[in-house]
Amino acid sequence: MVDEVILLDFYFSTFGMRARVALAEKAVEYEYKEENIFDKSPLLLEMNPVHKKIPVLIHNGKPICESLIIVQYIDEVWKDRSPLLPSDPYKRAQARFWADFIDKKLYGAGRKIYLTKGEEQEAGKKEFLDALKLLEGELGGKSYFGGDNFGFLDVALITFYTRFDVYETLGNFSIQEHCPKLIAWAKRCMEKESVSKSLADPKKVYDFVLDMRKKFGVE
Amino acid sequence: MVDEVILLDFYFSTFGMRARVALAEKAVEYEYKEENIFDKSPLLLEMNPVHKKIPVLIHNGKPICESLIIVQYIDEVWKDRSPLLPSDPYKRAQARFWADFIDKKLYGAGRKIYLTKGEEQEAGKKEFLDALKLLEGELGGKSYFGGDNFGFLDVALITFYTRFDVYETLGNFSIQEHCPKLIAWAKRCMEKESVSKSLADPKKVYDFVLDMRKKFGVE
Repeated sequence: MVDEVILLDFYFSTFGMRARVALAEKAVEYEYKEENIFDKSPLLLEMNPVHKKIPVLIHNGKPICESLIIVQYIDEVWKDRSPLLPSDPYKRAQARFWADFIDKKLYGAGRKIYLTKGEEQEAGKKEFLDALKLLEGELGGKSYFGGDNFGFLDVALITFYTRFDVYETLGNFSIQEHCPKLIAWAKRCMEKESVSKSLADPKKVYDFVLDMRKKFGVE
Repeated sequence: MVDEVILLDFYFSTFGMRARVALAEKAVEYEYKEENIFDKSPLLLEMNPVHKKIPVLIHNGKPICESLIIVQYIDEVWKDRSPLLPSDPYKRAQARFWADFIDKKLYGAGRKIYLTKGEEQEAGKKEFLDALKLLEGELGGKSYFGGDNFGFLDVALITFYTRFDVYETLGNFSIQEHCPKLIAWAKRCMEKESVSKSLADPKKVYDFVLDMRKKFGVE
């Protein structure tokens, strides 16, 4: 049986990009379907009735939701190439812990930088940099988070690199200055075609976020 | 080498109980260390500096944090007995999805029932029952969420059964009335010694929650 793989996604989504990078790493061919997140398709509502969110991976008709769960699923189904999670249980737990940390802390802090003003934005900036520094500490002197090979936690974090211009410009700070090792890591990841071809164009992301700010009445 | 396994936990925690149930299912011997969550020990702060929360599993000196990650770790390390996650990637993804759903939706809705009043409490009640009904739908006619055997999603949800008295009494509704299959499932789980001996006593939970309400000024 030939696998039918469909990705319901949104070009600018840091979560959606994770699925794209994972599929590219595994060289899985798939049909990309762009969703309008402000006017969701009947297919999206049918495939993810609980959260009604992209990304959704539809594999032979069956939906898988939530980006980190999708990446683990991709890793488990196409396990013969480019393993993403390490094989050691402790290292797997660490990779899962930090990926979860990104979703619980980094994402929300980042949103505050571009969707709020004044004190709330300042608080977001501090939380964001604190989170990023912890992640840089976890990276340490390694090439990738898991060691010598690009893996699960790299997939989980690299998609946020598309918003670094947004954070820096709207937050008026330099990530390079605070987290130089993390920037070097991001550039290393971007040398991989599976990453560079899967991520959104930072310039377009910037314009999209400015539009969102207007929509949310921030400016 | 003999494994040294320590669990930093708090008797009343629905998250901590997940680790206890998983360890009991796997018949892993461990040292239980009760934490005072209002005055955290130096060991807890050292072992979980990021979130500073129980449960923390310390395995041969190395800490694993976040309850669902701990349960997966336990399943992967002691993989020769009582498998918790199914082997099929799609079923694994489904189990992870619903466990994540419990943390994102059910837990917070439940808290609103016992830590708020009036309109907010009513909203919590509705969200809670909606979430529980979705979980009952996922259970369907099966004995356990994964089928015939007690597994990952059962571990993730059964610990909330210790608070059912709290939700029902403070929210003034009957879970049995809305979700009879889920109650039958919970009673089935409670027949397992690994569950019944690991969960907190619902009467003590009730008193603890009443104390919390006073602490948070709800009454």
